[in-house]
Amino acid sequence: MSIKLNFKSGVVDLAMGAGGKAMNRLINQLMKKAFDNEYLSQGEDQATLPNLNGKIAMTTDSYVITPYFFPGGNIGSLAVYGTVNDLAVGGVKPLFLSVGFILEEGLPLSDLKVIVESMAEAAKASHVQLVTGDTKVVEKGKGDGVFINTTGIGVVIDDFVTHEPLAMGDCIIINGAIAEHGVAVMSKREGLSFDCDVKSDAINLNHLLERLHQSGCRIKTMRDPTRGGVAATLNEWASQHQVGISIDESALVVSEEVRSACELLGLDPLFIANEGKVLIVCDESEVEKVLTCLQQDELGKNASVIAKVDKVGNASVNMQTSFGGLRRVDWLSGEQLPRIC
Amino acid sequence: MSIKLNFKSGVVDLAMGAGGKAMNRLINQLMKKAFDNEYLSQGEDQATLPNLNGKIAMTTDSYVITPYFFPGGNIGSLAVYGTVNDLAVGGVKPLFLSVGFILEEGLPLSDLKVIVESMAEAAKASHVQLVTGDTKVVEKGKGDGVFINTTGIGVVIDDFVTHEPLAMGDCIIINGAIAEHGVAVMSKREGLSFDCDVKSDAINLNHLLERLHQSGCRIKTMRDPTRGGVAATLNEWASQHQVGISIDESALVVSEEVRSACELLGLDPLFIANEGKVLIVCDESEVEKVLTCLQQDELGKNASVIAKVDKVGNASVNMQTSFGGLRRVDWLSGEQLPRIC
Repeated sequence: MSIKLNFKSGVVDLAMGAGGKAMNRLINQLMKKAFDNEYLSQGEDQATLPNLNGKIAMTTDSYVITPYFFPGGNIGSLAVYGTVNDLAVGGVKPLFLSVGFILEEGLPLSDLKVIVESMAEAAKASHVQLVTGDTKVVEKGKGDGVFINTTGIGVVIDDFVTHEPLAMGDCIIINGAIAEHGVAVMSKREGLSFDCDVKSDAINLNHLLERLHQSGCRIKTMRDPTRGGVAATLNEWASQHQVGISIDESALVVSEEVRSACELLGLDPLFIANEGKVLIVCDESEVEKVLTCLQQDELGKNASVIAKVDKVGNASVNMQTSFGGLRRVDWLSGEQLPRIC
Repeated sequence: MSIKLNFKSGVVDLAMGAGGKAMNRLINQLMKKAFDNEYLSQGEDQATLPNLNGKIAMTTDSYVITPYFFPGGNIGSLAVYGTVNDLAVGGVKPLFLSVGFILEEGLPLSDLKVIVESMAEAAKASHVQLVTGDTKVVEKGKGDGVFINTTGIGVVIDDFVTHEPLAMGDCIIINGAIAEHGVAVMSKREGLSFDCDVKSDAINLNHLLERLHQSGCRIKTMRDPTRGGVAATLNEWASQHQVGISIDESALVVSEEVRSACELLGLDPLFIANEGKVLIVCDESEVEKVLTCLQQDELGKNASVIAKVDKVGNASVNMQTSFGGLRRVDWLSGEQLPRIC
């Protein structure tokens, strides 16, 4: 165990995923050191956690984003924030995450170190712990640098998200500007890179959403508009609740840089992934309270009502354009941008 | 949503991992149908589970086994059994699993269907539910057919596994023959395939281990000897508890077919992965009770004591050979067989 890994010029090899000394060396010298906590250091194949009071919630995501370093983050920080947010938007207090790495032979250890340390920082910022993990290595050409699965569990917060069906007049609020994650990643993508100062918005939303709970806001449902963007989430809701949703284009915040990049690429910001945004549905009577509460937080200072439920009985999503027109916002068959998370 | 996927000759495409209609079609027509349960059908990004009484345990594993179909199972059944077992050997009752797929563009949908349906069957046999999932697709040449992460949670069973340190005289029991999983997979591996009737032993061990608990057996610790085989697990324990462990070669059960295959490949069965075996440590006074209980079950009928703790203060693993010699059993730097799970 005394051999020190070379984190300057070393690379991942097949032995590091094979259950022997080489794997233990990688885990001890990198993951255990970075993620350090009482559960991980139990050193078993399963982490034993405390008794949790309340209903448990569980979510999972595999991250295959390319490139794995992008402006505003990397696959490691994204893998923590993304899973934390999938719990938080369910009205859940995120507590514990598992981590599964699938590494490609030849991955520079220096890259892996940055990724693992970013995960540790993101976990700390989100007040969650990385309690159990797994590392596999595949041959060169059978993977793509690094894929990460994180699975999270937490406890459902009482009297917060009601999960009532969407109804006539309900308002849909977002906490800020859209499409930043997707544009930031595209700007660095091989064969496409362009000059652009946009950074990914990837960040944990659990503290912002706990603030809503503490202020006594009653929320019907929430979701983070990641793959497929705001358009996908609104279409999911429209279809799930059989309602018509009308977006107010003038209320959407899109930065100048994102707008130019979208024009350059021929993409619509409504369909582009976000990683630090949440769509919140509430009764019209709650809107003021929710907006005021969000706007007091750095992550919600540009919060606004961007859409309303204006029909019931049929699923549809339309947008009132800034020019006074009306256009249908369907969800895409696929995705404009594959491997965005 | 009415377009039917072609499960006979269709293949996975990038759109199926992109958060739009194509992904929903795959999930609705395949995963949701196969895994069908009240939690998955909540249709949210997180599953809300009941209040769990007791300490929670959590484990994760990514499966990258090649080939993904092998004698006795496939990557899907393995991904369920492997994670169920990682909980069960901790003295935990497995309850809920998450599933993350990373699919390679071009994967035949017919293969994916078999894999997903095997997961559903394995979950049913193990009395666990697949409650939340995620599907990503990577370009051809950036993955290898299918990788699966499963993460499991369960409740720690009271008064069962004591986690006491290993001590002089402790006995180590295994529930049957070794090295079947690794040999079965190797026999079908590209560039190596050979004639051999060995089937993987991959199976869920939770029912067998619950039987031990119900019989009032007191267990110190358990582990499933997967990657790195029996040798790796014994070396982990020796090093963790600073004890000397002595294996009795004559007590090891190795089938004739496994033995011939190992000779052909120049491999030692002690280092080869198992997926339906458990190593159980108990005080000498418990041995009879544990053996009797195991042997009443089909999965434990060949159970025997294969090793003892015969030194304290220093880590070592040795084997008393059938010829009366003594040889050191070190753990390997890497693995004889990469991507075995």
